Amino acid sequence: MAEKLAIGIVGGTGYTGVELLRILARHPGAELRVITSRKEAGMPVAQMFPSLRRVVDLAFSDPAKAPLAACDVVFFATPHGVAMSQARELVGAGAKIIDLAADFRLKDTATFERWYKMPHACPDLLAESVYGLPEMNREAIRKARIVGNPGCYPTTVQLGFLPLVEAGVVDGSKLIADCKSGVSGAGRKTETQLLFAEASDNFAAYGLGGHRHHPEIVQGLSAVAAGKGRVSVLFTPHLTPMIRGILSTLYAPLARAVDVQAVFEKRYAGEPFVDVMPAGSAPETRSVRASNMLRIAVDAPAGTGLARVVVVMDNLVKGAAGQAVQNMNLMAGLPETAGLDAIAVLP
Amino acid sequence: MAEKLAIGIVGGTGYTGVELLRILARHPGAELRVITSRKEAGMPVAQMFPSLRRVVDLAFSDPAKAPLAACDVVFFATPHGVAMSQARELVGAGAKIIDLAADFRLKDTATFERWYKMPHACPDLLAESVYGLPEMNREAIRKARIVGNPGCYPTTVQLGFLPLVEAGVVDGSKLIADCKSGVSGAGRKTETQLLFAEASDNFAAYGLGGHRHHPEIVQGLSAVAAGKGRVSVLFTPHLTPMIRGILSTLYAPLARAVDVQAVFEKRYAGEPFVDVMPAGSAPETRSVRASNMLRIAVDAPAGTGLARVVVVMDNLVKGAAGQAVQNMNLMAGLPETAGLDAIAVLP
Amino acid sequence: MAEKLAIGIVGGTGYTGVELLRILARHPGAELRVITSRKEAGMPVAQMFPSLRRVVDLAFSDPAKAPLAACDVVFFATPHGVAMSQARELVGAGAKIIDLAADFRLKDTATFERWYKMPHACPDLLAESVYGLPEMNREAIRKARIVGNPGCYPTTVQLGFLPLVEAGVVDGSKLIADCKSGVSGAGRKTETQLLFAEASDNFAAYGLGGHRHHPEIVQGLSAVAAGKGRVSVLFTPHLTPMIRGILSTLYAPLARAVDVQAVFEKRYAGEPFVDVMPAGSAPETRSVRASNMLRIAVDAPAGTGLARVVVVMDNLVKGAAGQAVQNMNLMAGLPETAGLDAIAVLP
Amino acid sequence: MAEKLAIGIVGGTGYTGVELLRILARHPGAELRVITSRKEAGMPVAQMFPSLRRVVDLAFSDPAKAPLAACDVVFFATPHGVAMSQARELVGAGAKIIDLAADFRLKDTATFERWYKMPHACPDLLAESVYGLPEMNREAIRKARIVGNPGCYPTTVQLGFLPLVEAGVVDGSKLIADCKSGVSGAGRKTETQLLFAEASDNFAAYGLGGHRHHPEIVQGLSAVAAGKGRVSVLFTPHLTPMIRGILSTLYAPLARAVDVQAVFEKRYAGEPFVDVMPAGSAPETRSVRASNMLRIAVDAPAGTGLARVVVVMDNLVKGAAGQAVQNMNLMAGLPETAGLDAIAVLP
Repeated sequence: MAEKLAIGIVGGTGYTGVELLRILARHPGAELRVITSRKEAGMPVAQMFPSLRRVVDLAFSDPAKAPLAACDVVFFATPHGVAMSQARELVGAGAKIIDLAADFRLKDTATFERWYKMPHACPDLLAESVYGLPEMNREAIRKARIVGNPGCYPTTVQLGFLPLVEAGVVDGSKLIADCKSGVSGAGRKTETQLLFAEASDNFAAYGLGGHRHHPEIVQGLSAVAAGKGRVSVLFTPHLTPMIRGILSTLYAPLARAVDVQAVFEKRYAGEPFVDVMPAGSAPETRSVRASNMLRIAVDAPAGTGLARVVVVMDNLVKGAAGQAVQNMNLMAGLPETAGLDAIAVLP
Repeated sequence: MAEKLAIGIVGGTGYTGVELLRILARHPGAELRVITSRKEAGMPVAQMFPSLRRVVDLAFSDPAKAPLAACDVVFFATPHGVAMSQARELVGAGAKIIDLAADFRLKDTATFERWYKMPHACPDLLAESVYGLPEMNREAIRKARIVGNPGCYPTTVQLGFLPLVEAGVVDGSKLIADCKSGVSGAGRKTETQLLFAEASDNFAAYGLGGHRHHPEIVQGLSAVAAGKGRVSVLFTPHLTPMIRGILSTLYAPLARAVDVQAVFEKRYAGEPFVDVMPAGSAPETRSVRASNMLRIAVDAPAGTGLARVVVVMDNLVKGAAGQAVQNMNLMAGLPETAGLDAIAVLP
Repeated sequence: MAEKLAIGIVGGTGYTGVELLRILARHPGAELRVITSRKEAGMPVAQMFPSLRRVVDLAFSDPAKAPLAACDVVFFATPHGVAMSQARELVGAGAKIIDLAADFRLKDTATFERWYKMPHACPDLLAESVYGLPEMNREAIRKARIVGNPGCYPTTVQLGFLPLVEAGVVDGSKLIADCKSGVSGAGRKTETQLLFAEASDNFAAYGLGGHRHHPEIVQGLSAVAAGKGRVSVLFTPHLTPMIRGILSTLYAPLARAVDVQAVFEKRYAGEPFVDVMPAGSAPETRSVRASNMLRIAVDAPAGTGLARVVVVMDNLVKGAAGQAVQNMNLMAGLPETAGLDAIAVLP
Repeated sequence: MAEKLAIGIVGGTGYTGVELLRILARHPGAELRVITSRKEAGMPVAQMFPSLRRVVDLAFSDPAKAPLAACDVVFFATPHGVAMSQARELVGAGAKIIDLAADFRLKDTATFERWYKMPHACPDLLAESVYGLPEMNREAIRKARIVGNPGCYPTTVQLGFLPLVEAGVVDGSKLIADCKSGVSGAGRKTETQLLFAEASDNFAAYGLGGHRHHPEIVQGLSAVAAGKGRVSVLFTPHLTPMIRGILSTLYAPLARAVDVQAVFEKRYAGEPFVDVMPAGSAPETRSVRASNMLRIAVDAPAGTGLARVVVVMDNLVKGAAGQAVQNMNLMAGLPETAGLDAIAVLP
């Protein structure tokens, strides 16, 4: 790497923002240049996040004045709606954009607008943008100017069902995704149900009436299933008393007898960040804590006619900031694993 | 209540034991007389459990010498296999028995022996014993001499599927039970995976190759389904980083259009410890923490053809000691709710 | 008890409010009549707190219209400043008042105003009010019309140092209180540092520059020390990743050789809610979880010249709502322990 | 670095073992060669710790057969007593030894034998060994063949008091160390009090009658105080419901007015792994989670005559494996920070 990529981060005070900082500060091919926050402009980053003392010297800058257009890559770790409002200008200036919110996830603007309650600001850029799931779209990502980084749940559900749907061995119209997420998945929002005294020593279902990640999951799996029938997923998210981690337990009716273990091993052979565990494994989230690895176990319990897939992932890494850096690496022609070799923290 | 029931507890050093003590020490119709522990004989109970200081004055006594036969009711809070070895003598002496382990749960001795790796010591007593799920077997429990107290997972899964299977509105051969339990469900065993530093900030699937609670669930629901076809359940337990609580998310293919909310409300009308929540509710375990209440929400998400049931329960109360006391109340002709009116502790 | 006390609660949506509801709903001598919330007027209490379904049928009412004056006892579970603004009217109507906030804790209005940044609304009522620590002020509480319920930290620190200071066996000018509180102690406020993803798996000191509970502690211990010299306390609070519970570790230089265990046992003999543990005990917060008991251990480690006291308490019970009900019992001539016999929930 | 150091780890199945693996597997100058476990010989390391899948290919080997003598550096992550029994042979073969247990911590064999209940196997090697606290003994460590890696509590207490004692500005005979540790500090032992259902949502004092880390603390600070009077420390450890992290709150009577902030900043200027935070800071353990940094804040609260120091550290990194690697770097002439630049994981 001759020269390091100049990096800008818009909205660095949330959990995906600080995780981007943690990863990028040790990335051999990237250099943090700008990090913005409207509310905290002027405050040193390390004052808000003492974990970054002696590591990140930047202060938050005012987004209106920040020299983002001079960056090679700009990450948006912002609420939904921000990236699409700035994308045209930045892309015009030559920056590549990776949005960690939802602006570039859903290809159908009507669906986007129904779920996110706002019109899409740049349907043309949405059309050219690429959904940043490398295991599905690696080549397109390499050439993209704008990447919509996947949601955390959708990463697990799509990668968990993908081999089965792609191989045509399950009935894609009867999928069930029972998903459990750590609390950081909701972001650094001061909402009552996210308080320690509410969420600790407690386990809850939520979003039973519908969840924004549902159309994203269906969009991705429908593309995979193309020509093999309609995809329908019953998606049940749950809030789990842990900081990081998602475990998704997936159920799919088998259309025919098949060696599910072999299907997964073959599909993910060579993937740097998808680990198909040996048959009989029972994954746990801490095996991927603070790492970009996603681990999968699969079986087909006798007498049930079902394939069962268990996927674990760190929602802030492979489910957000790590995957965003993986996309950056692809877009910039760097080794896909650059800066992403941290080993899971256990215990 | 003229005179209080004399109570014995065999094996009081585990979590179901101490929970029995907590409930029975405040029960208006019961008096703790004997509590045994082979290892801790002689130690005051309140020395092991300081939470019981000033409340329980008993010391653990040697099971070989304890006057259990003089008790009206004897609870077994022991490992599997103990209750069945002492049942004949105690029943002969006129005591009623409630076993919180598995000796009197599975009616089929071959199934028992396959899962618990020991021959059954008293098949005749097993035959007369009653499975202690009051919402299913209330009248039989009233007359029983021996009650097999249900497992924690089976209580949630059976009560969650029961109205649907009984009403014949689902395909009982394709049931899925995705269950999440707090760590106390595994008992007070010193096993590595139960250590704080292993189980905290972590979420794991386990028992994927089979679990002892599976045949218990199938036995119960098969009885309910009698004449309506085979019951098959795919059961996936998960270990959740909380002390108490089970949340079971259940999925069943609907056999016909039906108002699932009405089915549940009708079935559980008048049940003192089953709370069918309003449509649209999302239950959480803390809403039942340290109480004997079990709460259920049900829906039938559009386009899926599935009924989805979410059940929450405190595994140590309605899932163990509380349900055992509920059974005691029924067996002794006391009000079913006696001693069980504690409100859930929140936060 | 001929007739039950009519109870009003002002501000029932926080943790002390819901804890008052939990305790009072099962109190044999009290009946909940009114519970107010400006923001949630009209909402059934059990909708906000599903743990109270089937137990509390009240809805929150508008404080401006609620018939509080018709209550025998009114609890204020409100932010600081509310109780003092309504006290005169309610007391005039014959209601007794128990304020769980700070309006009636500090006798010196200048001190109150310095720490709470507001003028005191009724210095005359403050003068007649009683600081509601029964172990210090039992007789005065019995006759009070207005009780200022102690803060959580101050309850542990005062009861922990009281026997030593009262007996004149320590140098009261060099006290150290190293205190650790569960997160619910901060209330149900949506502040970033109280989020699960911030407070879990973390331990932090805070309030190093000064804390509102400091003058309250000094006021109480100074009264105890009257004539025995100045009291000075270095108070260090810490935020602990648990929902409920305070453990305070206290250090005091011994002024002379003394049997500290005996000092404590003598001082607290007969106290229903203070448990002096045997010498050599190491208290833990779960031994009092969800109960009104406070447990203390004391030693004088060889060679240090210090007494060391370890106090555990549930901050929401003996540290707030339970102590408030204890005060109500005293004020109303009920048995002091009425409604407060719940056993600690362990595990 | 021409050639990588050949590394052996004895006893790799505990928490310090797996943490050594996590750090050394990414160390630019080290290569894992051997890892032993008597009980698990033959098992792939990554089978026990799935977090190490695709990272560590080694299997545990039988300690009796493992080629430890061929290693450049051998770490002992074993129970107390193992390292001293193998030290002579390994040192004779040219290996350097870093013991993470207590065999080479206490210079006085009588003290060692009193606390660890075993005779010391090699007093001569103990005499030449160096106590591995780089901020105290950097130059001696560089030349050492055997390093006794400090205990976790002692690292925080010594580094917290060191500047004050060294500068002679406090009365070293009246020190108080109130320390709070995450549960992993007790190791991966299957003891009841370490179970999730015991340690979660709980906070406890322990070791009030004496703790093995006490003589280690006194030994270190006494050396620092040499000629400035006796050192006495009252040490109170507490068990905190978090996996990793220690926060030690330290109190010392000031002997004279002094700018404590300046004393600390001067003493630790240039230290790569000691971060003196700005005046007014309130440290939290997560600011160092999974990193080798130790952070300190200090103040002298008005009117108390005391210095108060708050120290945070990850007990498994700077308190164990990270400090061990720091020592290795010094002993091998590598950059002191090699392999230790991981940023704290937050949230």
